[in-house]
Amino acid sequence: MSNEFLLDERLAADTLEIGDLSLSRVLLMNDRRYPWVILVPRRAGIREWIDLPDPDAQQLWLESMQVCRVLRDTFGGDKLNIGALGNVVEQLHVHHVVRTRQDPAWPGPVWGHSAAEPYARAEAESVRHRLGAALLS
Amino acid sequence: MSNEFLLDERLAADTLEIGDLSLSRVLLMNDRRYPWVILVPRRAGIREWIDLPDPDAQQLWLESMQVCRVLRDTFGGDKLNIGALGNVVEQLHVHHVVRTRQDPAWPGPVWGHSAAEPYARAEAESVRHRLGAALLS
Repeated sequence: MSNEFLLDERLAADTLEIGDLSLSRVLLMNDRRYPWVILVPRRAGIREWIDLPDPDAQQLWLESMQVCRVLRDTFGGDKLNIGALGNVVEQLHVHHVVRTRQDPAWPGPVWGHSAAEPYARAEAESVRHRLGAALLS
Repeated sequence: MSNEFLLDERLAADTLEIGDLSLSRVLLMNDRRYPWVILVPRRAGIREWIDLPDPDAQQLWLESMQVCRVLRDTFGGDKLNIGALGNVVEQLHVHHVVRTRQDPAWPGPVWGHSAAEPYARAEAESVRHRLGAALLS
């Protein structure tokens, strides 16, 4: 059904689920090199931010800013990177990445730089728990 | 003076000025391969979107959405890319890039991909005029 939200299979495969905000599914990119949160508005068939209806478009921005604040408070880092690209995965999703001057892709973008290094299980649970507590409480 | 807005020198060198929206300086990246607009909030000393005071933070989002609509209406393309990175240029700025499946960086990000191809003079004037008319009227 075209109006049922289903998470893109590639996003599902590359990430660990943290939970849901009022609009967006919150995902942790399974790459231990960068604290990296992806928001996916739970709306079907949307590729561009400007194609979300108006209350949703603004809500996505509010949730994006919330993720940025939580990422900086939780991980520090040297710079936040926000990106809505979608050249590979068509489903609208917004990346939020904590960058440090020591990370492998610095100062270039993380997208397309190199293969992810998946989290160890305990490490993933710790990061998911910290982000979930800060974002979903 | 710390509270006077001055455009970062590297942004100034890499772009052509289109004009000012209520918050942001509007710049055209001088790269004829991609319709590429950068918004720079005219506020001093800000690196992160979340460090803008609240009315400005939302205004930047509104202006970003406006740029996206104008870029799609003006140039079409296959996908809009929005990015706030700032790993190289610290002054807060937001990229908006019209991507096509035939562009040199597709499907990767444009940032850091390859050297810009500057516009010819008449071509630059035409693009600036079209964008200025749509954005600043």
